[in-house]
Amino acid sequence: MPASCPLCRAENETVLWQNSRLRVIAVNDTPAAPAFCRVIWREHVAEMTDLPAAARQEMMAAVWHTEAAMRRVLRPVKINLASFGNQVPHLHWHVIARFENDAFFPDSIWAAPRREAVPELPEGWQRQVAELLAAEA
Amino acid sequence: MPASCPLCRAENETVLWQNSRLRVIAVNDTPAAPAFCRVIWREHVAEMTDLPAAARQEMMAAVWHTEAAMRRVLRPVKINLASFGNQVPHLHWHVIARFENDAFFPDSIWAAPRREAVPELPEGWQRQVAELLAAEA
Repeated sequence: MPASCPLCRAENETVLWQNSRLRVIAVNDTPAAPAFCRVIWREHVAEMTDLPAAARQEMMAAVWHTEAAMRRVLRPVKINLASFGNQVPHLHWHVIARFENDAFFPDSIWAAPRREAVPELPEGWQRQVAELLAAEA
Repeated sequence: MPASCPLCRAENETVLWQNSRLRVIAVNDTPAAPAFCRVIWREHVAEMTDLPAAARQEMMAAVWHTEAAMRRVLRPVKINLASFGNQVPHLHWHVIARFENDAFFPDSIWAAPRREAVPELPEGWQRQVAELLAAEA
């Protein structure tokens, strides 16, 4: 657990679901992409192919549960999934619900924004996603 | 199979591996990100959670094989994985080998480039990846 890794520390997070191996959080620091969750493997591992097959499968099951819950609650036009880790090489998946009127659509949220519009999301969507994740577990 | 979907058509592709359900291609139209493969599900499906569990697992197995082969041949500093489909809602995974001196590092390849440098890649890396994928299949 490198002392410098922000994903090892897990401070100030909105945790939607967790077990001893991974956690699902709501990402609240990206106002232009407000419908954003992250699945974080607890152990400090860099790549999916560094994980044993069973762990890889557990990680992806959490990603699919998160995608399914976000689709059900948010009714997005598309889900975007990404595992980069260039800045923080600690395994984590971005799960992002996309809308035609969001700041970046149809580009990725890592492109330059096309507009200022921020989609209106259902009230309490993070709690609803957390409830669906708890029901799946 | 919508007539307008470019991923249904499969024209002018460098196929590295394929079976009846998916194909792995080398992406040659993004000069700033030259170490780039794509895993494409043949059926016109939009989201991973639209696939039955077994198909989802087969798709991801192809992604892990591609990641493992690219790591072995290219020795990148990081692998980036992404499934967006905002422009083409036909399931496909980007598998991108990243280098500290590539045009975007440590940002995603969808951000604005930071430099012009293009990493030197091993000669014939696509053929080597194809051979490893064939050996895994």
